[in-house]
Amino acid sequence: MTDPTATTPDRRPGGRTARIRAQVLAAVRAELAEGGHEGLTMEGVATRAGVHRATVYRRWRDVGGLLVDVIDAAGEIDWRPPDTGSLRGDLTALNEEIQESLVVRPSFAVALMAASFHSERAARAQSRLWDERYAQCEIVVTRAADRGELPAGRTDARAVLMAATAPVYHHVVLLRAAPDPQLPERAATAAVLAAKAGAFSVRVGG
Amino acid sequence: MTDPTATTPDRRPGGRTARIRAQVLAAVRAELAEGGHEGLTMEGVATRAGVHRATVYRRWRDVGGLLVDVIDAAGEIDWRPPDTGSLRGDLTALNEEIQESLVVRPSFAVALMAASFHSERAARAQSRLWDERYAQCEIVVTRAADRGELPAGRTDARAVLMAATAPVYHHVVLLRAAPDPQLPERAATAAVLAAKAGAFSVRVGG
Repeated sequence: MTDPTATTPDRRPGGRTARIRAQVLAAVRAELAEGGHEGLTMEGVATRAGVHRATVYRRWRDVGGLLVDVIDAAGEIDWRPPDTGSLRGDLTALNEEIQESLVVRPSFAVALMAASFHSERAARAQSRLWDERYAQCEIVVTRAADRGELPAGRTDARAVLMAATAPVYHHVVLLRAAPDPQLPERAATAAVLAAKAGAFSVRVGG
Repeated sequence: MTDPTATTPDRRPGGRTARIRAQVLAAVRAELAEGGHEGLTMEGVATRAGVHRATVYRRWRDVGGLLVDVIDAAGEIDWRPPDTGSLRGDLTALNEEIQESLVVRPSFAVALMAASFHSERAARAQSRLWDERYAQCEIVVTRAADRGELPAGRTDARAVLMAATAPVYHHVVLLRAAPDPQLPERAATAAVLAAKAGAFSVRVGG
């Protein structure tokens, strides 16, 4: 109990604190993917992570704390949206990445969505993550506008991204239909055609 | 215990069996909306319905049986898609109906979706219900084609409906964003523009 890191944790990246967090969050992801949030316990996570239970309780307090931190960690990944040279190519690549994350079994992404139906804190953390991801992806629409792929004037980038990606989530997560290998491109193409036709153009003063 | 209906149930619509089912399913809906599927118990439903627990156990067996039946019952409602005279009007009206069912608090529709993350039987029943609903709505696209609103040749009606409705579910159920009163019409308009541009046209032989 005289471990100095217990009172002065080493918070450098790669330090002991960061290492323990990485071990614990990897365990949370594995437990979530295998058993869903209903099977998530502080004890199960500590055991799988090989970390003292007291440490897990002290730093994450409860299962809600673990869920929030694993969602926050997903937002810390150095992720960049695709850059294929065309709006259709970028949105298709984005949709393929999304579909892949949803259909892999067990799916961490689906387990998180399920968890957010039952934990208000997890739901809020997940909303923040979605917001960040959509904000990061707006560059895809900005680049398309710069290339002259979209009508003159401002296009609502978020609306284009929603139109392109929502059918993939809808199909796999809500309808629970068998994954459709054509859907990522079809949904992307439909959003691009709608955008070119001015569906997401922002009216000046409107 | 000599009640003759116990052995020869009256299955006429409006008969005792139908009446008990209506009472029990109303109780399931109320309990689901208030406490989610996690709070759903056979005892709670029987008490709220004012029906003997033994009857509930005999006819629905377990909570999964109640969930499946309440989803099946939603499919038995004599529901018809809107018929406003234009594809955009129909899809907007459909989206407004969907958004209304999702944002009302407590929402039975959202509680069912949450339940289907945790019960394979409920998930299958819900998939059947979605399938029926989308099949019922295909007439909206057929009528638009008959009116000459769509390109010549066949349009994938299901794809149009998915494109129109998915953003509403995505926004409210997955992103948990505040309901956007413009979204039903915006998403409908985008789907119509994409359809007119041929995004959902079925290539002959392709």
